[in-house]
Amino acid sequence: MNTIRIAVAGPRGRMGVEALRLIERTPHFQLVAAVDRTNGGKLISDIDGLPSLAAPIYEDLNVCLSEVQVDVLLDLTTPEIGKNHVYIALEHGVRSVIGTTGFTEQELRDLEAAAKEKGVGTIIAPNFAIGAILMMKFAQMAAKYFQDVEIIELHHDQKLDAPSGTAVKTVDLIRSVREPKKQGHPNESEQLQGARGAEVDGIHIHSVRLPGLIAHQEVLFGGDGQMLTVRHDSFNRVSFMSGVQLAVETVMKVDGLVYGLENIVD
Amino acid sequence: MNTIRIAVAGPRGRMGVEALRLIERTPHFQLVAAVDRTNGGKLISDIDGLPSLAAPIYEDLNVCLSEVQVDVLLDLTTPEIGKNHVYIALEHGVRSVIGTTGFTEQELRDLEAAAKEKGVGTIIAPNFAIGAILMMKFAQMAAKYFQDVEIIELHHDQKLDAPSGTAVKTVDLIRSVREPKKQGHPNESEQLQGARGAEVDGIHIHSVRLPGLIAHQEVLFGGDGQMLTVRHDSFNRVSFMSGVQLAVETVMKVDGLVYGLENIVD
Amino acid sequence: MNTIRIAVAGPRGRMGVEALRLIERTPHFQLVAAVDRTNGGKLISDIDGLPSLAAPIYEDLNVCLSEVQVDVLLDLTTPEIGKNHVYIALEHGVRSVIGTTGFTEQELRDLEAAAKEKGVGTIIAPNFAIGAILMMKFAQMAAKYFQDVEIIELHHDQKLDAPSGTAVKTVDLIRSVREPKKQGHPNESEQLQGARGAEVDGIHIHSVRLPGLIAHQEVLFGGDGQMLTVRHDSFNRVSFMSGVQLAVETVMKVDGLVYGLENIVD
Amino acid sequence: MNTIRIAVAGPRGRMGVEALRLIERTPHFQLVAAVDRTNGGKLISDIDGLPSLAAPIYEDLNVCLSEVQVDVLLDLTTPEIGKNHVYIALEHGVRSVIGTTGFTEQELRDLEAAAKEKGVGTIIAPNFAIGAILMMKFAQMAAKYFQDVEIIELHHDQKLDAPSGTAVKTVDLIRSVREPKKQGHPNESEQLQGARGAEVDGIHIHSVRLPGLIAHQEVLFGGDGQMLTVRHDSFNRVSFMSGVQLAVETVMKVDGLVYGLENIVD
Repeated sequence: MNTIRIAVAGPRGRMGVEALRLIERTPHFQLVAAVDRTNGGKLISDIDGLPSLAAPIYEDLNVCLSEVQVDVLLDLTTPEIGKNHVYIALEHGVRSVIGTTGFTEQELRDLEAAAKEKGVGTIIAPNFAIGAILMMKFAQMAAKYFQDVEIIELHHDQKLDAPSGTAVKTVDLIRSVREPKKQGHPNESEQLQGARGAEVDGIHIHSVRLPGLIAHQEVLFGGDGQMLTVRHDSFNRVSFMSGVQLAVETVMKVDGLVYGLENIVD
Repeated sequence: MNTIRIAVAGPRGRMGVEALRLIERTPHFQLVAAVDRTNGGKLISDIDGLPSLAAPIYEDLNVCLSEVQVDVLLDLTTPEIGKNHVYIALEHGVRSVIGTTGFTEQELRDLEAAAKEKGVGTIIAPNFAIGAILMMKFAQMAAKYFQDVEIIELHHDQKLDAPSGTAVKTVDLIRSVREPKKQGHPNESEQLQGARGAEVDGIHIHSVRLPGLIAHQEVLFGGDGQMLTVRHDSFNRVSFMSGVQLAVETVMKVDGLVYGLENIVD
Repeated sequence: MNTIRIAVAGPRGRMGVEALRLIERTPHFQLVAAVDRTNGGKLISDIDGLPSLAAPIYEDLNVCLSEVQVDVLLDLTTPEIGKNHVYIALEHGVRSVIGTTGFTEQELRDLEAAAKEKGVGTIIAPNFAIGAILMMKFAQMAAKYFQDVEIIELHHDQKLDAPSGTAVKTVDLIRSVREPKKQGHPNESEQLQGARGAEVDGIHIHSVRLPGLIAHQEVLFGGDGQMLTVRHDSFNRVSFMSGVQLAVETVMKVDGLVYGLENIVD
Repeated sequence: MNTIRIAVAGPRGRMGVEALRLIERTPHFQLVAAVDRTNGGKLISDIDGLPSLAAPIYEDLNVCLSEVQVDVLLDLTTPEIGKNHVYIALEHGVRSVIGTTGFTEQELRDLEAAAKEKGVGTIIAPNFAIGAILMMKFAQMAAKYFQDVEIIELHHDQKLDAPSGTAVKTVDLIRSVREPKKQGHPNESEQLQGARGAEVDGIHIHSVRLPGLIAHQEVLFGGDGQMLTVRHDSFNRVSFMSGVQLAVETVMKVDGLVYGLENIVD
């Protein structure tokens, strides 16, 4: 695989540090620059706690892309900065992977047009957890063959909302491929209110909250004498790095804008 | 282990047939008689579909116990017949295992007094599924050490009630050893009603109904950085035979009445 | 959906009976004939134990297809008869779904050529369990994104071989999309021989055998701080009917031969 | 519950810090002193990174116990220091909970005699993870009623040994209550070597190693049409605090020595 020359924006953030480590251990990835709001003129290896990579730090992305030959900008900053950076990268004809959730529908349409006009691959990734993305994709695929599905999502007991955003997104993906169907026995009843969970178009969702847990979800499909289960367990916060790697490798091959990693797994 | 001489009442019912097979394959069990409302004077081996055991069939338990030396009466008939049989067995000083749910609290107290007076071991077993009984017992034990617990029970979609009777009994056992506790975050809220399931004294219960499933339950305990799960899967209707065996072996050692197998597992 | 006119060969076999019931309860399926080695001239509804469908029974497929307008032949007989039937159907220009494992590679190539020449859709399905097929397909897809995978398959303790055929097939599908990789720590060692299971190209396989179980498999993928699990539980022998339905519906849309349902799920 | 006055030895270690937080948040626990090899004369609240508890720090346990009224010494130091501390506590008539694995059988016998003579409760706890201890205890209990059991333990792929120490200990506990039994079909065979896992007295053990995982184990019991599963998931390193709390509360009620928390759960 050809080496991919990467510039990381936001190298000192929690995700930025993990991304530097990912680049360090991936043979066909090379860190060629970093963009930070401070530390201009230093090297990444000069900063305490960062990997000893000799890439120069710039405080301005425009300058960085003028001076360094970059294949992919990997932006792990804030939504505001990311929105600015993606257009600067487009101006320079540099592909970018932007890890942020902050775009409105209108902003996405504008960006799509701009990326298409420039013919420059651009990926926006609100969620880098490749396992969660596969779980949702598999759930959507299985829903074509199994009419009955329930979702159990389990999180630590400090979570305020129920059900989780991932459960709601999973339900949306399933609904996009099946007709609404009332599940369970037509005459079933709850002796204790809430036992059958929440319901959207017949899909039941159950939210478990227990101390000690992290973030888990299983999607259960039942059919004639069989059950198919897809489960994702998120054990810690670095569980996005395989998604970052996939996005960086894939952006080299796409034209225009891709929104969401579920559109690049196959 | 000494051979236990067993008389089976209700040998042609679904459970009766399984019990005959259990006796046939258990070296220290011996079938010495059966009690059936028909077929008096025949042998079990004369009846189509039954194991080829040479035990005589009686139509009256009283006559049976007068003529045959029986260690244990295993009654798998109806509640009405079972209630009658247990007293006949007591009269003869014969221990009995009665598999029925039909006793009222008053009837149990009367039977307890009678069994005690006669000094004859008697076990009433509304549920012979030893795995389910252990699950409930373990859940009760774990609740002493984990303050937070949720129950997920999963059944086929022909089930009318939710939650299941086993889930309700599990909750009762847990409540008997812990103070009520509001679980989850104090400020948690349901964006979709029912997501957090049913609740009894802070214990959340979730009922999944899917075609293809049979009868399953898991009890989840969460604590500091850990989760403890106890799960029982019932795959078919013969899952009560290990409980029958345990009851027959145990009734030889107890005095008076035991109600429920959870009181003989340790 | 347009009604599909179906002829069932082998209507009295275990799978045949289930297929008749499937047709009976599926609105867009219609049973127009059956092929049986006996009972010619009767109706399906004349046979004890079969659904009361008024379709005529033929003892010869050739005659059947000459007299009745059939969209799909659903063959649930033996490999020998199935191989004969598929060519008779081709001669009549009738699509067929053949549920058998008996074809050699050469026979498949010959059949492929014949089906292509006639331009008639034909599906050979060695395995109708759609849940198992999806599990294998998802495992293959996930293997592109997760380098590390282990398989646990669990069966009843009467099974003679280990690992199961499904586990071996899953491994083959995973190997087709990834490079061999030694998994686990390079210096790991077994204090008890066999603890790490069987290994094929670095993929570890573990076979659990316990009484009471039926047929279950889970495929576990581990990555950076996360785990993705795909699990299939087969609870009884009718778990193939959703696959039969899928095959019948799909054969209406395909040209030529399809071997294996994994090639029609998407 | 009466307040328990606790002295912590080793307050700056990883477990020590967690124990201070446990004491801080537990209403009936009070920190009355700490023993550290440095920082004598300061308060716990003077040390960066420790909870703001006003307890004095001593560099010598003997002095500490002479000056402060202590109910329980909680020792989270090293095996060498712990072995010394427990005898000093005995001299002062102070109960102790020692979290260490370093005692030989002879040292345990000597300590047992000393604790008995003094009549002072003492608990040695090589493992504080209460969930793991319950899993092992439940497995041992279930083994009395289910003849067939297999163990699956799952860990991160940096683990060098297989099977895990917990799996081996679980097997030992199960073996203590059952006769050796060859499980699986008498004629079963491995088409791929190792598929059936490691085996001890007929109990099969399977070790899964995948990146991303932490420490997990399930014990599966199979019987007539049913399965009973006990599972423990360790998600992080603070999962021992409920065990510490249990030990501190229990040591107030025991006389003499208890070795291992499995002997105090019931």
